[in-house]
Amino acid sequence: MIINHYEDIEAVELMEGVKKRVVIGDNEGAPTFIMRIFDLDPGKSSPYHIHPWEHEVFVLQGRAVVTNDTGDQISIEAGHTIYIPPNEKHCLTNKGEGIFRFMCLIPRGVEETEAQTVT
Amino acid sequence: MIINHYEDIEAVELMEGVKKRVVIGDNEGAPTFIMRIFDLDPGKSSPYHIHPWEHEVFVLQGRAVVTNDTGDQISIEAGHTIYIPPNEKHCLTNKGEGIFRFMCLIPRGVEETEAQTVT
Repeated sequence: MIINHYEDIEAVELMEGVKKRVVIGDNEGAPTFIMRIFDLDPGKSSPYHIHPWEHEVFVLQGRAVVTNDTGDQISIEAGHTIYIPPNEKHCLTNKGEGIFRFMCLIPRGVEETEAQTVT
Repeated sequence: MIINHYEDIEAVELMEGVKKRVVIGDNEGAPTFIMRIFDLDPGKSSPYHIHPWEHEVFVLQGRAVVTNDTGDQISIEAGHTIYIPPNEKHCLTNKGEGIFRFMCLIPRGVEETEAQTVT
Protein backbone atom coordinates (compact mmCIF):
# COMPACT_ATOMS: atom_id res chain seq x y z
CA MET A 1 0.00 0.00 0.00
CA ILE A 2 1.02 3.60 -0.47
CA ILE A 3 0.44 6.09 2.35
CA ASN A 4 0.85 9.84 2.00
CA HIS A 5 -0.38 12.98 3.65
CA TYR A 6 -2.09 15.15 1.06
CA GLU A 7 -0.09 18.19 2.20
CA ASP A 8 3.09 16.37 1.14
CA ILE A 9 1.82 16.00 -2.44
CA GLU A 10 2.95 18.77 -4.76
CA ALA A 11 0.22 21.27 -5.61
CA VAL A 12 0.12 22.52 -9.20
CA GLU A 13 -1.34 25.98 -9.86
CA LEU A 14 -3.77 25.50 -12.75
CA MET A 15 -4.62 29.17 -12.89
CA GLU A 16 -4.27 32.05 -10.43
CA GLY A 17 -5.74 30.99 -7.10
CA VAL A 18 -6.66 27.45 -8.23
CA LYS A 19 -4.40 24.60 -7.09
CA LYS A 20 -4.64 20.87 -7.76
CA ARG A 21 -3.04 17.86 -6.05
CA VAL A 22 -3.32 14.37 -7.57
CA VAL A 23 -3.23 12.42 -4.30
CA ILE A 24 -3.98 8.92 -5.68
CA GLY A 25 -3.44 8.52 -9.41
CA ASP A 26 -1.19 7.15 -12.11
CA ASN A 27 1.89 7.50 -9.87
CA GLU A 28 0.33 5.11 -7.35
CA GLY A 29 -0.93 2.75 -10.07
CA ALA A 30 -4.62 3.42 -9.41
CA PRO A 31 -6.40 1.24 -12.00
CA THR A 32 -9.98 2.58 -12.04
CA PHE A 33 -10.31 6.10 -10.65
CA ILE A 34 -8.19 9.05 -9.58
CA MET A 35 -8.39 11.11 -6.37
CA ARG A 36 -7.53 14.80 -6.60
CA ILE A 37 -7.75 17.68 -4.09
CA PHE A 38 -8.37 21.26 -5.24
CA ASP A 39 -7.83 24.52 -3.36
CA LEU A 40 -9.63 27.67 -4.49
CA ASP A 41 -8.63 31.04 -3.07
CA PRO A 42 -11.47 33.35 -1.96
CA GLY A 43 -13.55 34.48 -4.95
CA LYS A 44 -11.92 32.01 -7.33
CA SER A 45 -13.81 29.48 -9.42
CA SER A 46 -13.19 26.38 -11.47
CA PRO A 47 -14.14 26.92 -15.14
CA TYR A 48 -17.82 26.44 -16.01
CA HIS A 49 -17.31 23.34 -18.12
CA ILE A 50 -18.68 20.06 -19.42
CA HIS A 51 -17.17 16.65 -20.22
CA PRO A 52 -18.29 13.08 -20.90
CA TRP A 53 -17.23 11.68 -17.49
CA GLU A 54 -18.60 12.02 -13.98
CA HIS A 55 -17.27 13.83 -10.93
CA GLU A 56 -17.59 12.63 -7.35
CA VAL A 57 -16.93 15.56 -5.01
CA PHE A 58 -16.52 15.77 -1.23
CA VAL A 59 -16.10 19.19 0.38
CA LEU A 60 -13.27 19.25 2.93
CA GLN A 61 -13.12 22.88 4.00
CA GLY A 62 -14.71 26.26 3.37
CA ARG A 63 -17.86 27.66 1.85
CA ALA A 64 -18.78 27.82 -1.83
CA VAL A 65 -21.49 27.56 -4.42
CA VAL A 66 -21.78 24.93 -7.12
CA THR A 67 -23.34 26.11 -10.38
CA ASN A 68 -25.46 23.44 -12.05
CA ASP A 69 -26.43 22.67 -15.65
CA THR A 70 -29.16 25.33 -15.72
CA GLY A 71 -27.04 28.01 -14.07
CA ASP A 72 -28.56 27.75 -10.60
CA GLN A 73 -26.17 28.17 -7.67
CA ILE A 74 -26.40 25.92 -4.62
CA SER A 75 -24.52 26.62 -1.36
CA ILE A 76 -22.11 23.93 -0.14
CA GLU A 77 -19.74 23.56 2.80
CA ALA A 78 -17.61 20.92 4.55
CA GLY A 79 -19.26 17.50 4.48
CA HIS A 80 -21.31 18.02 1.32
CA THR A 81 -21.06 15.44 -1.45
CA ILE A 82 -21.83 16.26 -5.07
CA TYR A 83 -22.41 13.72 -7.81
CA ILE A 84 -22.06 15.40 -11.21
CA PRO A 85 -23.12 13.02 -14.01
CA PRO A 86 -21.34 12.97 -17.37
CA ASN A 87 -22.29 15.77 -19.78
CA GLU A 88 -23.63 18.20 -17.18
CA LYS A 89 -22.25 21.72 -17.00
CA HIS A 90 -20.81 22.73 -13.62
CA CYS A 91 -18.35 24.86 -11.70
CA LEU A 92 -17.48 25.57 -8.06
CA THR A 93 -16.89 29.09 -6.73
CA ASN A 94 -15.35 30.00 -3.38
CA LYS A 95 -17.75 32.29 -1.49
CA GLY A 96 -15.90 32.20 1.83
CA GLU A 97 -13.03 34.20 3.30
CA GLY A 98 -10.57 31.29 3.45
CA ILE A 99 -9.47 28.49 1.16
CA PHE A 100 -12.22 26.31 -0.28
CA ARG A 101 -10.87 22.75 -0.46
CA PHE A 102 -12.59 19.79 -2.06
CA MET A 103 -11.85 16.30 -3.29
CA CYS A 104 -12.89 15.56 -6.85
CA LEU A 105 -12.58 12.04 -8.22
CA ILE A 106 -12.72 11.01 -11.88
CA PRO A 107 -12.39 7.74 -13.80
CA ARG A 108 -8.84 6.87 -14.79
CA GLY A 109 -7.81 7.60 -18.36
CA VAL A 110 -10.20 10.42 -19.18
CA GLU A 111 -8.49 13.34 -20.75
CA GLU A 112 -8.97 16.61 -18.95
CA THR A 113 -8.21 18.31 -22.25
CA GLU A 114 -11.50 16.97 -23.61
CA ALA A 115 -13.39 19.18 -21.16
CA GLN A 116 -15.07 22.10 -22.85
CA THR A 117 -15.39 25.45 -21.15
CA VAL A 118 -18.88 26.87 -21.64
CA THR A 119 -20.58 30.14 -20.86
CA MET B 1 -26.32 16.84 -10.09
CA ILE B 2 -27.10 15.36 -6.71
CA ILE B 3 -26.01 17.20 -3.56
CA ASN B 4 -26.17 15.74 -0.08
CA HIS B 5 -24.53 16.22 3.27
CA TYR B 6 -22.94 12.96 4.37
CA GLU B 7 -24.57 13.24 7.80
CA ASP B 8 -27.98 13.05 6.08
CA ILE B 9 -27.14 9.68 4.52
CA GLU B 10 -28.29 6.71 6.57
CA ALA B 11 -25.48 4.91 8.39
CA VAL B 12 -25.67 1.12 8.47
CA GLU B 13 -24.01 -0.69 11.39
CA LEU B 14 -21.95 -3.47 9.80
CA MET B 15 -20.84 -4.82 13.15
CA GLU B 16 -20.71 -3.36 16.64
CA GLY B 17 -18.96 0.02 16.50
CA VAL B 18 -18.45 0.00 12.70
CA LYS B 19 -20.79 2.13 10.59
CA LYS B 20 -20.92 2.65 6.82
CA ARG B 21 -22.56 5.30 4.67
CA VAL B 22 -22.72 4.94 0.88
CA VAL B 23 -22.62 8.65 0.03
CA ILE B 24 -22.28 8.38 -3.79
CA GLY B 25 -23.22 5.01 -5.25
CA ASP B 26 -25.87 3.06 -7.12
CA ASN B 27 -28.66 5.31 -5.78
CA GLU B 28 -27.03 8.32 -7.45
CA GLY B 29 -26.24 6.40 -10.64
CA ALA B 30 -22.48 6.53 -10.20
CA PRO B 31 -21.15 4.62 -13.23
CA THR B 32 -17.51 3.87 -12.35
CA PHE B 33 -16.75 4.05 -8.64
CA ILE B 34 -18.51 4.31 -5.29
CA MET B 35 -17.82 6.70 -2.39
CA ARG B 36 -18.40 5.38 1.13
CA ILE B 37 -17.69 6.86 4.59
CA PHE B 38 -16.92 4.61 7.56
CA ASP B 39 -17.00 5.41 11.29
CA LEU B 40 -15.10 3.23 13.73
CA ASP B 41 -15.67 3.60 17.46
CA PRO B 42 -12.56 3.71 19.68
CA GLY B 43 -10.73 0.37 19.62
CA LYS B 44 -12.80 -0.99 16.73
CA SER B 45 -11.35 -2.34 13.51
CA SER B 46 -12.42 -3.26 10.02
CA PRO B 47 -11.83 -6.98 9.31
CA TYR B 48 -8.31 -7.94 8.21
CA HIS B 49 -9.28 -8.94 4.68
CA ILE B 50 -8.32 -9.24 1.03
CA HIS B 51 -10.18 -8.84 -2.26
CA PRO B 52 -9.42 -8.44 -5.97
CA TRP B 53 -10.19 -4.69 -6.17
CA GLU B 54 -8.42 -1.59 -4.92
CA HIS B 55 -9.29 0.85 -2.14
CA GLU B 56 -8.66 4.59 -2.22
CA VAL B 57 -8.84 5.94 1.32
CA PHE B 58 -8.84 9.48 2.72
CA VAL B 59 -8.82 9.98 6.48
CA LEU B 60 -11.35 12.59 7.62
CA GLN B 61 -11.11 12.49 11.41
CA GLY B 62 -9.33 10.71 14.24
CA ARG B 63 -6.26 8.59 14.76
CA ALA B 64 -5.73 5.00 13.71
CA VAL B 65 -3.34 2.41 12.38
CA VAL B 66 -3.55 0.65 9.05
CA THR B 67 -2.25 -2.92 9.00
CA ASN B 68 -0.54 -3.86 5.75
CA ASP B 69 -0.02 -7.10 3.83
CA THR B 70 2.88 -8.20 6.02
CA GLY B 71 1.16 -7.32 9.31
CA ASP B 72 3.01 -4.06 9.94
CA GLN B 73 0.99 -1.23 11.49
CA ILE B 74 1.36 2.35 10.24
CA SER B 75 -0.10 5.36 12.08
CA ILE B 76 -2.55 7.54 10.17
CA GLU B 77 -4.62 10.62 10.96
CA ALA B 78 -6.75 13.26 9.22
CA GLY B 79 -5.38 14.14 5.78
CA HIS B 80 -3.65 10.84 5.11
CA THR B 81 -4.39 9.03 1.86
CA ILE B 82 -3.95 5.28 1.45
CA TYR B 83 -3.86 3.44 -1.86
CA ILE B 84 -4.45 -0.28 -1.26
CA PRO B 85 -3.87 -2.27 -4.47
CA PRO B 86 -6.00 -5.30 -5.35
CA ASN B 87 -5.12 -8.53 -3.52
CA GLU B 88 -3.32 -6.93 -0.57
CA LYS B 89 -4.39 -7.75 2.97
CA HIS B 90 -5.37 -4.75 5.10
CA CYS B 91 -7.44 -3.40 7.96
CA LEU B 92 -7.86 -0.12 9.83
CA THR B 93 -8.03 0.08 13.63
CA ASN B 94 -9.12 3.10 15.65
CA LYS B 95 -6.36 4.00 18.13
CA GLY B 96 -7.84 7.32 19.26
CA GLU B 97 -10.37 8.31 21.90
CA GLY B 98 -13.03 9.56 19.47
CA ILE B 99 -14.59 8.33 16.24
CA PHE B 100 -12.19 7.44 13.44
CA ARG B 101 -13.83 8.48 10.16
CA PHE B 102 -12.51 7.76 6.68
CA MET B 103 -13.65 7.73 3.09
CA CYS B 104 -13.06 4.51 1.20
CA LEU B 105 -13.78 4.33 -2.53
CA ILE B 106 -14.12 1.18 -4.61
CA PRO B 107 -14.90 0.41 -8.25
CA ARG B 108 -18.60 0.02 -8.99
CA GLY B 109 -19.96 -3.51 -9.26
CA VAL B 110 -17.46 -5.35 -7.13
CA GLU B 111 -19.08 -7.64 -4.66
CA GLU B 112 -18.17 -6.99 -1.06
CA THR B 113 -19.13 -10.59 -0.38
CA GLU B 114 -16.11 -11.69 -2.41
CA ALA B 115 -13.81 -10.21 0.23
CA GLN B 116 -12.10 -12.84 2.32
CA THR B 117 -11.34 -12.32 5.97
CA VAL B 118 -7.82 -13.48 6.79
CA THR B 119 -5.80 -13.95 9.95
